[in-house]
Amino acid sequence: MNAYPDLEQRFRRMLMLQSVEEMLDWDSSAMMPSGAAASRADQMALLRVLRHELMCAPELVELLGEAEAQSDSLDPWQQANLREMRHQWIHSASVPGKLVDAMSRATSACEARWREARKESDFDGMAPLLAQVVELVRQVGEARAELLECTPYEALVDEHQPQLRLAEIDPLFDELATFLPGFLERVVESQAAAGEPLDLTGPFSVEAQRALGMRLMQIVGFELDHGRLDVSAHPFCGGTPDDVRITTRYDEAHFTGGLMGVLHETGHALYQRGLPEAWRYQPVGEPRGITFHESQSLLIEMQACRSRPFLELAAPLIREAFGCDGPAWTADNLYRCYTRVKPGFIRVEADEVTYPAHVILRYRLEKALIGGALEVSDLPDAWQDGMKQLLGLTPPDHARGCLQDIHWFFGIFGYFPSYTLGAVTAAQLYRSAVAQNPAIPSGIASGDFVPLVGWLRDKIHRAGCRWSPTELLERATGGPLDIAHYKAHLHERYLPG
Amino acid sequence: MNAYPDLEQRFRRMLMLQSVEEMLDWDSSAMMPSGAAASRADQMALLRVLRHELMCAPELVELLGEAEAQSDSLDPWQQANLREMRHQWIHSASVPGKLVDAMSRATSACEARWREARKESDFDGMAPLLAQVVELVRQVGEARAELLECTPYEALVDEHQPQLRLAEIDPLFDELATFLPGFLERVVESQAAAGEPLDLTGPFSVEAQRALGMRLMQIVGFELDHGRLDVSAHPFCGGTPDDVRITTRYDEAHFTGGLMGVLHETGHALYQRGLPEAWRYQPVGEPRGITFHESQSLLIEMQACRSRPFLELAAPLIREAFGCDGPAWTADNLYRCYTRVKPGFIRVEADEVTYPAHVILRYRLEKALIGGALEVSDLPDAWQDGMKQLLGLTPPDHARGCLQDIHWFFGIFGYFPSYTLGAVTAAQLYRSAVAQNPAIPSGIASGDFVPLVGWLRDKIHRAGCRWSPTELLERATGGPLDIAHYKAHLHERYLPG
Repeated sequence: MNAYPDLEQRFRRMLMLQSVEEMLDWDSSAMMPSGAAASRADQMALLRVLRHELMCAPELVELLGEAEAQSDSLDPWQQANLREMRHQWIHSASVPGKLVDAMSRATSACEARWREARKESDFDGMAPLLAQVVELVRQVGEARAELLECTPYEALVDEHQPQLRLAEIDPLFDELATFLPGFLERVVESQAAAGEPLDLTGPFSVEAQRALGMRLMQIVGFELDHGRLDVSAHPFCGGTPDDVRITTRYDEAHFTGGLMGVLHETGHALYQRGLPEAWRYQPVGEPRGITFHESQSLLIEMQACRSRPFLELAAPLIREAFGCDGPAWTADNLYRCYTRVKPGFIRVEADEVTYPAHVILRYRLEKALIGGALEVSDLPDAWQDGMKQLLGLTPPDHARGCLQDIHWFFGIFGYFPSYTLGAVTAAQLYRSAVAQNPAIPSGIASGDFVPLVGWLRDKIHRAGCRWSPTELLERATGGPLDIAHYKAHLHERYLPG
Repeated sequence: MNAYPDLEQRFRRMLMLQSVEEMLDWDSSAMMPSGAAASRADQMALLRVLRHELMCAPELVELLGEAEAQSDSLDPWQQANLREMRHQWIHSASVPGKLVDAMSRATSACEARWREARKESDFDGMAPLLAQVVELVRQVGEARAELLECTPYEALVDEHQPQLRLAEIDPLFDELATFLPGFLERVVESQAAAGEPLDLTGPFSVEAQRALGMRLMQIVGFELDHGRLDVSAHPFCGGTPDDVRITTRYDEAHFTGGLMGVLHETGHALYQRGLPEAWRYQPVGEPRGITFHESQSLLIEMQACRSRPFLELAAPLIREAFGCDGPAWTADNLYRCYTRVKPGFIRVEADEVTYPAHVILRYRLEKALIGGALEVSDLPDAWQDGMKQLLGLTPPDHARGCLQDIHWFFGIFGYFPSYTLGAVTAAQLYRSAVAQNPAIPSGIASGDFVPLVGWLRDKIHRAGCRWSPTELLERATGGPLDIAHYKAHLHERYLPG
């Protein structure tokens, strides 16, 4: 009868160790001197091994079985916690130790080679290493697929976004892939007719950019006594719910990307901070998957902060921060800069309209790689074909093609779809939020994010993993994921009137 | 036959976990937002518990016994490692879990109350909590004393400085206590006759102080790719040998203390960085106790950086950093500022000549408290008497008396003697270094610390815990700890000619 409390103790240890890893990860990116990399790798490896030993203890799976047999005696949160424990166990313990080791070695070698290969735009030289990674990742997917009752690729997706299956992704991405090219053409024409936005001429000092970012973060609701803003090469939001660590990078010639990056990460931070306090260090107290995490950052960035009303609020603060003025610095021109659409080769530089095309391309290719329908050696050609079809572009080299993202070379497959599913989810959540509380848009316009963040806290953040992802969305918005909201958002923003 | 390698694996885990604690400790002091304190305490407690479980595993003491029985088959470094493993085990595992818990609770309560009591200068209100801590600390000392074959107070000292016993401390401190009052009187007279040094008038911006500190740290030999300099309320040197994290605090009205603080911590940093790389995460690869650690910081600060030749080198850099010039900014006046002697109530503000008096006072009182010769309720009177005798001063309140240091209220007894033993050791080491390599002083004068640091690396840092503390000093200097070197240093610096 003590199986469930015993499990809570064990998972508390694992998730607390993971929270220590989060802090060290932040430190590695934002603070650590270069010479400490090897010793940090030792520390991280030990923490992971300790966590893995806890998860793979033979008693643990027995306790799970016992607790599941007695789950009627648990309250609904405990039952949800037990379900999430099992889910974490499947992902961590179902893969044989030998395969974990092989993956770790293969991805380290492949990632290191990729850093060189990208510089030299050399795909062929790195294809054998990538093929090895793909083969191992496929085996990992197969090991999990049986327990999850899904395909190997779905089992990889499931690690990042539990319960997400191809039956949900495929029709949605197909519809988007049909809709986007024509829509994009009309947006580009319309923006060409209106002319280029005026240049925002710098330089913009790092101090001024940082102070402005801090000011806007706080307007959005970031709590400075529970977090920090620092610098790293690759911006991210890490840390723990009580100690959220955001990073960004500053470009003294352009501030717009860095500033919106800070607000994007603030959306992640608000989610983390709002997770249910009573369930800290328990699986049910964790975020509801990467799609939901991305929906929170994109809701704050794309729905709220790139909106015209928010830029009306921000424009005088931006002018003040940089001591700039004149026609380039009006809310109107800032809004035009922040909604500029231009097809390009690089995903991380893409605008809101072309971004899904980059994601759909990657999704289709990685699904085919894991499913065996595409060989690694055929990847570059398939990439060129997909870019042509989705964005009408032909990358001039592999560096600006299939070598641009780290994900695959580091063994991460099944992650890409969540970027766009997060954007679709964000549009649906935001429209429901406004329908349920019409004070939200005027709040954003006046710098009062309490109505919006309060709604998100209530409907999403505080729920943790209490509900399945599908239930969570339905409880918040009254229906399943529906791309109509996202298309309506794109129409209103990019082809108004 | 596998006992020893098994032990190495186990201690590697423990010391690597401890290195993670070091990083989190640094973060707590230098980076963490205030609202994260409770969750950080959870993380730290878990890491300590995991470490304690590893140390108290029943197999571990069996493995120690086995390995000790077979120690002939080990090489000398392994034998030393095994000796240090046993020593760590005695300190960690010999105290009953219940007593560890009781200590943890009592010291947390006492420290929290102390923070208030110090503000209000209220000793009586906090005496019962301190009495409880003293009683528990005494029990800890008793638990260890049996295994270490020493008195309970010695067992407390031994945790910080292994093998240091009263037979070594008492005669040395008695001689100092006899010597210092008369010496101090002559120094004060001599400095009064020479007049006050000229004021160094600020303000001094934090940025300029930081840049200057970084410049001088690097001259001394701090490697920026293996460490950082940040800010915290209480300066310290933490991190790991590959990632040394120094903190300081800046006072915009006075730069001298902060700057010398950075150089003091740099001395600690050099020791950490120089520990034997082949023995990372093994007991024999650790520093040789707090006395040696303090000897390294004080050697760099007191012997090298407060010397006239170093200040000749630093003076133009200081002038440049702050854009100052004039008679107050000569090496001569800077040297007079940095060697100014003035008896005061506060240990952490004390100069080189009066500092030992503060230490001897605390040593005598804590020895009496643990030994039972002094009741907590009699502590304030004993403090006043000691201050009168050693420094000729009567503190006006308890805040400037027995409430000034956190150590006792946090349960730390047996630490104080190492501050002064470190200073005595530093004088002896420095004199031996110069005798063995006469190029050292001219190196310091020209900003080349390689001869000095090379000697320290060779004789002290790279030895880790290969030798006992006594052997280590004898191998480096040719003799046991001898206060004559320290007295000679004080004479030369404060009563030259």
